[in-house]
Amino acid sequence: VTTVESAEERLVRMGLTIPSPPPAVAAFQPFVVWGTSVFVSGQIATREGKPVATGQLGVDVDLDTGVDAARACAVNVLAQLRAAAGSLDAVARLIKITVFVSSAAEFTQQPAVADGASRLLIDVLGPAGAHARSAVGVASLPLGTPVEIEAIAELRTTPSADARAGQE
Amino acid sequence: VTTVESAEERLVRMGLTIPSPPPAVAAFQPFVVWGTSVFVSGQIATREGKPVATGQLGVDVDLDTGVDAARACAVNVLAQLRAAAGSLDAVARLIKITVFVSSAAEFTQQPAVADGASRLLIDVLGPAGAHARSAVGVASLPLGTPVEIEAIAELRTTPSADARAGQE
Amino acid sequence: VTTVESAEERLVRMGLTIPSPPPAVAAFQPFVVWGTSVFVSGQIATREGKPVATGQLGVDVDLDTGVDAARACAVNVLAQLRAAAGSLDAVARLIKITVFVSSAAEFTQQPAVADGASRLLIDVLGPAGAHARSAVGVASLPLGTPVEIEAIAELRTTPSADARAGQE
Repeated sequence: VTTVESAEERLVRMGLTIPSPPPAVAAFQPFVVWGTSVFVSGQIATREGKPVATGQLGVDVDLDTGVDAARACAVNVLAQLRAAAGSLDAVARLIKITVFVSSAAEFTQQPAVADGASRLLIDVLGPAGAHARSAVGVASLPLGTPVEIEAIAELRTTPSADARAGQE
Repeated sequence: VTTVESAEERLVRMGLTIPSPPPAVAAFQPFVVWGTSVFVSGQIATREGKPVATGQLGVDVDLDTGVDAARACAVNVLAQLRAAAGSLDAVARLIKITVFVSSAAEFTQQPAVADGASRLLIDVLGPAGAHARSAVGVASLPLGTPVEIEAIAELRTTPSADARAGQE
Repeated sequence: VTTVESAEERLVRMGLTIPSPPPAVAAFQPFVVWGTSVFVSGQIATREGKPVATGQLGVDVDLDTGVDAARACAVNVLAQLRAAAGSLDAVARLIKITVFVSSAAEFTQQPAVADGASRLLIDVLGPAGAHARSAVGVASLPLGTPVEIEAIAELRTTPSADARAGQE
């Protein structure tokens, strides 16, 4: 019998804790489920509610810090997906992420920053984590964090109305 | 008998007039309907075809003006949704908006600007208006308006082919 | 008998060659197919793997060069769609494109740049190419190219599992 490691099992092996999902900071939902599709609102680079860094790539944030910020965004995306689906094992496929990187005009390594998120998402979700992506350099982001990531994913089944009402 | 106020009834009560939808300013459609999904093209901050303001948050546009510009974008999104659906009462759910805010590097209150749009959309659409959102600071926007908003929504039913052909 | 020219036939008439799709430059997929939907990752302005230009609109890239860069992005989007669908004739509808234009704060002609892509996509795909669009000015883009374009499209049928496994 072949046993395939699940996303939740990978988290345990990786020693990675996914926190409670960050609340939306304003008048919107952290995610919306429609049918089996989940749209995750833009997640900024926070840990325990605090920005992991502030500033711009190419000005006062170096590449390693940008990669770490992208990882923090990805963890927050996973937290929202788990809240939406009940378990990361219920994520059928991560479809697309958009990675906004606060950038000076001359900074053009947005893909290297975004890879911090892409690698983490693939490590946790496995084959279900292979995703399309856009990475662009923007002028500034909420709270001054250097990275913001939004996501679209597909769930294996539509969550129960109770679960959705409780989580949205 | 409980009567639930509809979106079109809310507009009347709020005294809010939704104009004819702005035409696309170039070689594309103001919205595309596929199945029951509607993709609304980026709507800039215009009223009666003129920008409500020009410039950047953090430079020459203050927060109140930015919030007002976001409201103007949201009205244009509603105008497109009504054109796509025939009536705002036919919108089953606003799924996601992306709010692009023309921003200086040091301006980080994009969520406060975007709330101008989110609050209006929720006020008009009611529970169907609860949406996912990303808000980012960009370098500049068409016609120099400070805000641009795109949207994805779900309709209750697929519009008739006649209606779609007439409106797209 | 009315014969309707197909997208692949239009390419031949236009003398336009769609190259092999550019590989993803990092840890993600160039496209993801889910059901009949295709999400194409952000395509930068390259030809034969090299940027067609570098810099920003309003600084060191003029409008004509920006339009040409948008066309290059559109060709790369078509290359990905063909890889996803097997043939451009299998594209039922281009739904939405997002056009990111590297821009100085005072450059506001993003729609004129984006039209380079929109016109090409409509010329090739015909009625199936009519799309929703957002065009925004960003701070910088990967490899320094002046334009990046992502796309969502619908296919006539779900590609076979074999084709998808081979192409993703």
